[in-house]
Formats: sequence, structure tokens, C-alpha cells
Amino acid sequence: VDEFALIQRIRRLFEPTGSPGPGIVLGNGDDAAVLDTDGEGLVATTDSLVEGTHFRWDLCRPRDVGFKAAAVSLSDLAAMGARPLALLVSFTLPADLDDKQVIGVSRGLARACRGFGVSVVGGNVAGTQGPFEVNIAALGRTLDGRYLTRSGARPGDLVLVSGHLGSAALGLAVLMDEDVPSNRYRTLVRAFLRPEPRLELGLSVLETPGVHCAMDVSDGFLADLGHLVRASGVGARVEVDRLPLCKEALRFQAAGGPDPVTAALNGGEDYELLVCDDPEALGRLQALGLSPVGTVNGRKGRIDLYRHGRKYPVPKNTGYKHR
Amino acid sequence: VDEFALIQRIRRLFEPTGSPGPGIVLGNGDDAAVLDTDGEGLVATTDSLVEGTHFRWDLCRPRDVGFKAAAVSLSDLAAMGARPLALLVSFTLPADLDDKQVIGVSRGLARACRGFGVSVVGGNVAGTQGPFEVNIAALGRTLDGRYLTRSGARPGDLVLVSGHLGSAALGLAVLMDEDVPSNRYRTLVRAFLRPEPRLELGLSVLETPGVHCAMDVSDGFLADLGHLVRASGVGARVEVDRLPLCKEALRFQAAGGPDPVTAALNGGEDYELLVCDDPEALGRLQALGLSPVGTVNGRKGRIDLYRHGRKYPVPKNTGYKHR
Repeated sequence: VDEFALIQRIRRLFEPTGSPGPGIVLGNGDDAAVLDTDGEGLVATTDSLVEGTHFRWDLCRPRDVGFKAAAVSLSDLAAMGARPLALLVSFTLPADLDDKQVIGVSRGLARACRGFGVSVVGGNVAGTQGPFEVNIAALGRTLDGRYLTRSGARPGDLVLVSGHLGSAALGLAVLMDEDVPSNRYRTLVRAFLRPEPRLELGLSVLETPGVHCAMDVSDGFLADLGHLVRASGVGARVEVDRLPLCKEALRFQAAGGPDPVTAALNGGEDYELLVCDDPEALGRLQALGLSPVGTVNGRKGRIDLYRHGRKYPVPKNTGYKHR
Repeated sequence: VDEFALIQRIRRLFEPTGSPGPGIVLGNGDDAAVLDTDGEGLVATTDSLVEGTHFRWDLCRPRDVGFKAAAVSLSDLAAMGARPLALLVSFTLPADLDDKQVIGVSRGLARACRGFGVSVVGGNVAGTQGPFEVNIAALGRTLDGRYLTRSGARPGDLVLVSGHLGSAALGLAVLMDEDVPSNRYRTLVRAFLRPEPRLELGLSVLETPGVHCAMDVSDGFLADLGHLVRASGVGARVEVDRLPLCKEALRFQAAGGPDPVTAALNGGEDYELLVCDDPEALGRLQALGLSPVGTVNGRKGRIDLYRHGRKYPVPKNTGYKHR
């Protein structure tokens, strides 16, 4: 199935005129939608974690699932530079699921809400003959009606990312390999189980002059940069040697683990921010913890990888992939 | 599994102080939550349709599923007296699902959006090893910050319902019985496949002086009246002979179909409005198409049924039930 082609077809059905409806400032296609509610923008987004697709009960605790479900939806608000306001939580429950697991998931969710300053204001419970799912719709507010989109990158911009790339995918690799002691790679495992939405960073990036564009890295750096360059009508050159890697990723590789560069390029679920900006903003963004990893050019929809000045082949997607 | 007990436990985790967080006017437990966004209230709710639990592909078209998914979520806004603003749509897709079915569901959703004056502003697609699911978060606005809750009923109030009760459950019975020609019971079948959220009616009820309380009938009249009397700290007496029944329901019964009174009391998914008000408001509410079916009293949490002045036993739940 070509997921993105399907999503494009669905979007055309929902926005037949190609533009959002009345009261809608920014419709489908970005990290979140923006609605006009009397001057202050309301930001809305939704995301799901499905058992068997996004997590396995044997690799994590119920609390991790709940925490991550909240974090994943809040990450979309962070990418817009929005402040979180409220969550709606929908559980899809198999008949044979122990109530303790649902309560555990809820505890993790409540923990994330306290940590990120947001409330669960509503929800739904539905039964299923299939796997467990938690879906979270996150609502936020813009700062004075301003927000960051993925469509604003311009040729000449720098490409920056926050934190480290590939850690979550390597954390999953640690958990899935019974021969790897997970307590030796706590940072990687934590990146996978307990991602932190970059909410404060998103607000700081929004306030930085010269920033044109932001999104979060959820599908994997290359996949998401692909979304960004297509939405912006530009291309990008990435310096592979500049990708920020976690020390544990290098230690894991030395012990026989996967290539951390491939994990950084293709691994999903980092939930870091990807930002494009005027070169003048570099110092301020570096001070916020962002690393420059490339430049934007006019080669529409293309991404070229370089390592030490030489072309670097796009690695096949060896990370795990889900819809 | 005791669904309501589980939901109460989850709610306590999300609202440990028993009161909603800052910026939240009305939290978990009503048809929808109300958030304070600079004076005008934002109303938010979420609902799911799960294949095998709420619908079967062999009993309806994909368009019906999409239409109903939108209608079910919008019905919660109607019950608050809110105007719809935007929907977030989440699909959970089995790998073997034909794209045509997803497109069909989306067409039905888009049709409902046009009909009810609302836009899909965002969404998500997730893969699953289980059944298809569509989850919809609906956002709406209050009229001048006013809204209807399920907790405002007072002893001495009348109990009224809109439209007919039990039609949806009987429509499902028609569809499930291969020996019943469904084209003879189009109104019943339509009530099940294409429920109409009572959005205009909800606004009119909100504007009617003397109305204290409203909710929609989704779990079944008796179950939902039970939620209402518990939330309001009151009891209710229902005149079973006054329950508004569709003519086709009586015709179906004469042809060997189920008892329409039992369907009206226990059948789910009517998506009509249940309203409690001062007796003085009766004329105005009847003019809006609401029927008086009972009275509110002080017998906390109790519901008594009467038929022609005699006690009527609560029928066992013979309707289909889902979480």
C-alpha cells in the first residue's frame, strides 16, 4: 500500500477546493491544523499508538505506552510552536485485556500530562476484537496567532535538528535483541520508550528571528525532510557527518549494534525538531541545542547526501516502518 | 468487564483533584468538554466506530460508516447546544483493507461534513493487525459561552426526547435478518445507517428558557437516562406509553419483528436529544418536535417505569450492546 498516495486522495475528498473551510487558518497536511478562535489560534492534531504496529506489551510497560501516546501528539504541537491546552483520549480495548493494563497506560498518560502542563478533558472507550489502541487528539494555542509550518523553507536556508537522531530506533533494537543488556544503553532505550516533546524548544524556535520552517521528526529524518522539501517546493543537501549521534549509539555500534548513521537517517520516532532558517539565526539556534546538518537549495523535492564532501548513497530503509 | 467502573477509575487518574485543570470549564464526564478560549467556549469530544463492534462491512456501505462516524461525534456537540467547527479523523487500517473502502468511508465523511457545515482539518492513518476503526474528534463553539450539561436536572422537571426511540436498533434487526426485506423498513434502516445529529435542535433547546439539562441518546434511552439522573443527583419516572415510536416500528412488530417498546428503552444509537426542563417550557419544546415521556423526582439514581398508570418491569437488555 502506498500510504502517502492514499492520504493525498483522502485529503482531496476533505478539501475539494484545495483550501481549508471558514474559520480554518491551516488545514490538513502540516503537523497540526490551526483554527481561528477570535484572534488566538487554536492548534489541533491527532495521533495513535497501535499494539503490534507501534509497540509490543512484552517490550515495554503499560505506563510507557501511555506516556509515549501523549508525547507523540504533543510533539506535533511543539513543531508548530504552540502551547498545549488539552487532550482527548480514546482507548480501543480488546475484551481479554486486563483492566490493570488500561490503568497502567492511563497512569503514564497522567504522568505525561503533569510533566507537560496539559489536561485530559475527555475521551472514549470502544471494544474491539483486535489489538489495543490509544488515540490522542491534542489541542493547543498559538502565541499571538503565530505558528511554524513545514512549507516555509527557502533556498539558502540552513537545516538544523534538535537533540540526537536515530536513538529511538536503536533503543528499539536494544529491546528487541535479547542478547543485548538494555541497562547498558539506558539513553537509547529511554529515547524509544519515553520521548520528550520539544514544547519549550518549539516556543523558543518560534521566537527566533529568521526561522522559516519547522516540523517534528517522527517518520525518520530522511522521510520527514522529504515531506518538508516537497511542502516547501525546495531541495536539500545533508552533510551526513554532521548528523548528531548519541554517544551510546557509537558504543552500541562498537559492540556489534547497527550503523548509527543509517539509524539517524531512516530510524523513526525521534520526536526531535527539524528547522530551516536564515544562516544569520545559526548562533541563536545552536545556543538552543540545535545542530546544523545541511542546507536548502532550489532542486525541488530532491535530497542529496554528502559525507566529507563526497556523495553518500541513500541507505535502504532498514529501520522498522509502520503506517 | 464493568465498563463504567473502569471509566470512573481512569477519570480519577486524569482529574486527581476532582476538578478540571486551568482553562478547562467542563472536564471529563459530559457529552463533551468545554474549554475557555478567550471568552468563547471551545467544545471538544471524541468517538470511534470499530469494525466488528459498531458495524459490519456486509451490512452497510463504506459511505455509511464514514457518514455515521461524523454524525456520532457531532451528536455530542448537539447535546451541548454547540455549533460544529472542525473534525480530526483517525483511521486504523488493516493491511488487507482495500483502498476503495477507505476512500468510500472518506466520501461518506465528506458528505456529512458538507451537510452539517463542518470541515475535516487534520487526521492520522495507522496500520493494524486487527479490524478497521475510524475515530473522530469533534470541535465546536458555544453560543456566548453557554452550553447544556447532563447534570442540571431538578425534581419537578419534565423529561422529553426528540424524534423516535428504538428505530436504530430495529433498523439493525432488519439488516441482520435475511428474511426481512430491508426496503420495506427504509426509515428504520436509515435511522441505523445514517443518524442525523440534532445540531439545529440543540441550539434551539439551548435558547429555550427553562431548559436545565440535555444529553444525546447513544447507549440507549434507559442507560442514558441513568447517566443523567446519576449526574444530576435525581430520579425519574417514565411513562412507557408515551415513548415516541416510529410507525414502521409498529408495522415491523405486526410482521413478527421485535417489541418496539423494548427497542425504545434499551436499543442504542438513536442519537436523539434527551432534555429536562421546567413544565412551563413544554409548549415551546413540543413545537420543536420533542415529546414529554416522564418527570424528574428526588429518588436519587432511580428510574421507575409506568404504563397506563401501572408499574412496568424494566426489560432485560435485548438490544445489542457494545462498549
